[in-house]
Order: sequence, then structure tokens, then C-alpha cells
Amino acid sequence: MIEDKTPQRTDLAQLGEFPLIKHLTKGFAIGQPTTHVGIGDDAAVLDFSGSAQKTVLTTDLLIEGVHFDLAYMPLKHLGYKSVVVNLSDVCAMNAQPTQITASIAVSNRFPLEALEELYQGIALACKTYGVDLVGGDTTSSTKGMLISITALGLAEPEKIALRSGAQPGDLLVVTGDLGGAYIGLQVLQREKEVFKVNPNSQPDLEPYSYAIERQLKPEARKDVIAFLAELGVQPTSMIDISDGLSSEILHLCDRSGVGCDLYEEKIPLDPTVINACEEFQLNPTTVALSGGEDYELLFTIKQEDYPKIKGNPHWTVIGHMTDASVGTHLVTRADQKIPLTAQGWGAF
Amino acid sequence: MIEDKTPQRTDLAQLGEFPLIKHLTKGFAIGQPTTHVGIGDDAAVLDFSGSAQKTVLTTDLLIEGVHFDLAYMPLKHLGYKSVVVNLSDVCAMNAQPTQITASIAVSNRFPLEALEELYQGIALACKTYGVDLVGGDTTSSTKGMLISITALGLAEPEKIALRSGAQPGDLLVVTGDLGGAYIGLQVLQREKEVFKVNPNSQPDLEPYSYAIERQLKPEARKDVIAFLAELGVQPTSMIDISDGLSSEILHLCDRSGVGCDLYEEKIPLDPTVINACEEFQLNPTTVALSGGEDYELLFTIKQEDYPKIKGNPHWTVIGHMTDASVGTHLVTRADQKIPLTAQGWGAF
Repeated sequence: MIEDKTPQRTDLAQLGEFPLIKHLTKGFAIGQPTTHVGIGDDAAVLDFSGSAQKTVLTTDLLIEGVHFDLAYMPLKHLGYKSVVVNLSDVCAMNAQPTQITASIAVSNRFPLEALEELYQGIALACKTYGVDLVGGDTTSSTKGMLISITALGLAEPEKIALRSGAQPGDLLVVTGDLGGAYIGLQVLQREKEVFKVNPNSQPDLEPYSYAIERQLKPEARKDVIAFLAELGVQPTSMIDISDGLSSEILHLCDRSGVGCDLYEEKIPLDPTVINACEEFQLNPTTVALSGGEDYELLFTIKQEDYPKIKGNPHWTVIGHMTDASVGTHLVTRADQKIPLTAQGWGAF
Repeated sequence: MIEDKTPQRTDLAQLGEFPLIKHLTKGFAIGQPTTHVGIGDDAAVLDFSGSAQKTVLTTDLLIEGVHFDLAYMPLKHLGYKSVVVNLSDVCAMNAQPTQITASIAVSNRFPLEALEELYQGIALACKTYGVDLVGGDTTSSTKGMLISITALGLAEPEKIALRSGAQPGDLLVVTGDLGGAYIGLQVLQREKEVFKVNPNSQPDLEPYSYAIERQLKPEARKDVIAFLAELGVQPTSMIDISDGLSSEILHLCDRSGVGCDLYEEKIPLDPTVINACEEFQLNPTTVALSGGEDYELLFTIKQEDYPKIKGNPHWTVIGHMTDASVGTHLVTRADQKIPLTAQGWGAF
């Protein structure tokens, strides 16, 4: 897992910039009706006219050594994840992702084969989510790898969910479960250290497979967007969980001008994550509040919509919005109210 | 010019990511009618519906030590230029730029004041070109500064100029003059070396002021787009000159399936650039063909449109497109035909 034993190394300098881009993007098909001209001109040409939909636009920068560690992040997974984190932002607007651009810079330590793997992951994400790669830039860096992705999406104007629409009394709902991606990271970092000491060790990662997958191959909850539409539920506010539950709740409260009561006992956790927390001597609630990178959706709904969502075992009502004057609190299992902070309520 | 003597240094770690973004982007106003939600949510919300215009989308990655050198590139200029190079791509589609996103990564050697200067340049470019900053990402890097800009623009469908529409017989037109940005770079690199040896030297840069400005503060030819519309001239193909004239001509020929005769004597050069070429013992034609970064527009027009453009002293007909079988050639002052290559016809 950790060592790259790839024997073939084609120096990027052998190709020019334009043949390289052509080579890396040749397998990408155009599927969106709004994509008129993709890669190959000064700019892509898109057609968002003639429909009533609005366009959403988001961008993220991922830097080796800051956002990812290639010691345990396979390049194909990195390509996939770097697209997904942007599509997650599109979904958090209650919009359907449509196009991306991908810019990559690499130092001369990366051969062509490394970029091919990265683009395989980008291609898989494009195929999985039905988005078109329509542009980008490929260049050299003085150190390491960096990836800049921009994503576009479309939404009916009345469906767009901002961070700012929550009202006191609205229910706070989260999809999936939390903390897995953080635990996955802990496991991978531990194995990296073990590997440094003993490169021949054969770790048993099976008990952590769920958490590791959450870290290495997260998904954007495009399915939730479709399901909200099917149920006829319009979130009053929405955000994706990239930085941890408490940070995202505070964003919703700040932008909506409301407070919040979050119930510790309601926070959804996977059993394998709870077990791993015990092993790592971490508090599962802290991990969920501050871990980040789960890319689940956090949204508020009107109380009257509760009957529409209550049958869904993968969506959990974890609290409710209050008047801003009440503040933002975690209600613990012991029924204590603790102020919610962006760092969680306990230090790691 | 070269040394940053800024005494005030506010550590970026003192601010969090979100207060930092808020601080840096607080002076930015929204001016485009298509911008509905700018910075501050998971994504920007834009409205391109309800008009017949198409959207163009382009992105560029600029990396310290590869694309710019902070030894002679002031941060404000860098911010301005990094926006302009993207707007130039929008203009090269015959489109009007409307929005940008700006993502920045910096190592801990940069204080808040450095980012403020950079954003002043970004703000000036936004104001000058009437585009809205609607998103981005601010993060730390392990080494140096990098900037990723994405730009959007709008164009009437029938006005979009691709690289692929040139026909044999079309005239090849270039705006402004060429080679200045490259000569500016030579001057700045020379002064950097002089400064290393003698930090107290006072160079007389006045003779090179035009070339230095071309390098440090290029402009996107938005005026040309407006003027083409006014004249009723539709370019059959268009590209901007970022990599040098010969490389861009070869792109047009390749994508249009045509050949080209380029006349050396027609290539527009500024007198101060010709003088500096003599001093640096460079061939001015080579500099224009291979220098790059001039951000002028290169386009083809039908011969029947020639009367409409011939009165413009800032646009020069430098050649004409031929049948692909004829090939791509430079016709020298001595009336010799030399094959055009992406590296120019002589080595630097």
C-alpha cells in the first residue's frame, strides 16, 4: 500500500505541455448537454441559456504535505477525492454537478505514469457523477504536487440552499455517519510510522476498512440531492461537512443568525469508528465534531417536513435551531449544555 | 524595487482561514447582473439563464519559481497579472469577462501584508475589467506562493471565436506589438543579478520602461473585443499570445487545418524593444516569435473584412492562411521561406 513499486517511469520533460494534456485527457467524454466545447481552446464554451436554472461555481486547492500525503494516498484515489470534495460543495447548494476543470502542478519527481494514475481517478469521478472535464492547466512545480479543481453545477432557482436560510425551530439533519474519515487518517498515519520502522510489517487493516475508505475515497452526496427532490423537501439551509460537524453548524448559525441545540446522543457514528476511537483513546463525539472530511451533508428543514424524512435510516435529526440569543450548544448525554466551538468541546 | 522593506508583518496563523478570507475580500463589490451570490457560501450562485449568451470558462495556475519571481515582481502587479492572463483567454474567445475565482496558497514566510498587496492587485484588475470575484480558496503551502484563477465570460453564440475556424486566404491579424514582455523579463533578470552583486546600484531603467511594464503589468485586450463588435468584424479564428507568436500561429493552423505565410517585415515591434534587442544581442523577430507573455490577440479575418480594419494603426496584418499542404512558413526580409516552428526559427 505504502510503497510505489511502479517500474515504468516516463520523464514528463519528454512530452511537451500540449501533447501531455492531450494524452491525459483523451479518455474523457462529454456527456452534459450544456457542454459545447471542452478542452482544447482558450476556454471551454458552455450553454446555460434557455433554461431557468442557475449556475453554481466552487473551487478548491489541494496541496501535497498540507491536504494529502502520498505515502498513504494512492494517486488514483487522490484524483477521485480532489473532484469529489468540489462536487460535495455543489451538492451543498442543492445543485446537480455538471462540469469541472482540473489544474495540476508536479515537480520532476513525478513520471508520466503518476499523472496517468491521477487522471484515472479524475476520470472515474467524472464518470461516477456524470460531470464533464472541460478545462485545466498542467504545469511544473518547484516542490511536490498540487491540484486545483473548479466545479460547476445547475439548480432550479427555488431549490438553491444557502447557508443563510435556517430559522429558529428548524430541525438540524445530517446524512450518513461522522468521524470515519478522521479515524481513517489516524490509522493510515500510524501505519506510515510502523512502515518507517519495519518496511516488511503486514498490517491487518481489515477492522478499519470502513474508516480508511471514508478517508481515501469519500463520496459527494449527490444521491441526497435527488432524494430531497423526490421527497419534496426544500432544505432551509445546507452545508457540506468538510471541516467537522461543529465548525459547519457554527457556519449555518452565523450566516442564518440563529442558535442551535445539538444532541450528543443523536450524532450518528459507525460501530467500527466507535471501536477504533476506543483503541486510539479518542472521544467519538470529539472526533465527529472536529474530525472533518466526511463530506456528508448538514441541512435544516422546517418541522412540518419531518414526517417526510423520518423513515430514512441514513438521515439523522441531531438537533434544532434556536433563537440566536440562546447561543450554540452541545447537549451532552449527561444533559449538560456546553457551548459549541469550532475546535469541538474538548482538545484532541 | 527589488527589496521588500515592509516593516509590518502580521503572521497569517494569527487569523483563522475564514476571518482571513473575509478580511482579504471585504473591498470587493459585485457589479455583474449575473452574479447572485458571491463569496461566503459553499459555492457562488450565477444566473446565465434567460439570455441567449453562452458562457466561457478558463483557468490558469501560476507558481512561484516557475511562472513568476518575487525578486522583481511586486505582489500587487502579480495579483493584477494573474487575473489578466485569465481574462485574456476569455477575450480570445471573443467573449466579455464577467466573474473570477482566486485561490491562493502561501508558505509561512508570507505575512498578512503580502496577501493584502496581492489582493489589491486582484481588486484593481476586477475593477479595471468590470469582473466580480465570486469565490476561491486560501490555504498554506509547504513552499512558496501559488495562485489559481478561474475566469468566466459571456458571448453571443454567433460571436464566439474558436481556434478552429480559419480558412485558406484568411488574413492573419495581430494587435499591439510583440516581444516587449520578453525583453522586460531580460532587463529584470539582469537587474536581479546586478542587485545580488551590488545592492546599492541604482539602475537606469527608463529606456526599458515600456518593456518592463509589458512584463509586469500586461493587459487583456478587452478593448479589441468591443472594437471588433463595433466594426462588425467576426474573427474566423482567434487565440491570445501567451507563448509567443509562432506557437500561437501553429495552434490556429493545427486546429483549423490550414497552413500560413507569416511576413517577417510585418511583425509589429516597439522601437524601444528593437533597441533593447540590439543591446541584448537578440534577434527581434526571434523575440517576437518565441518570447511570449505579450497577451495580444491573434486572429484571422475574411479578406472582405480587410477594409473595415485597415484604418486601425494598432492592428497589423502579418500574413495569410494557406492550404494545409503548403505548410506553415515565415517569409523573411530576404524573401526566403523558412518553416515556422514552435521554438521560433533560431535558437535563443
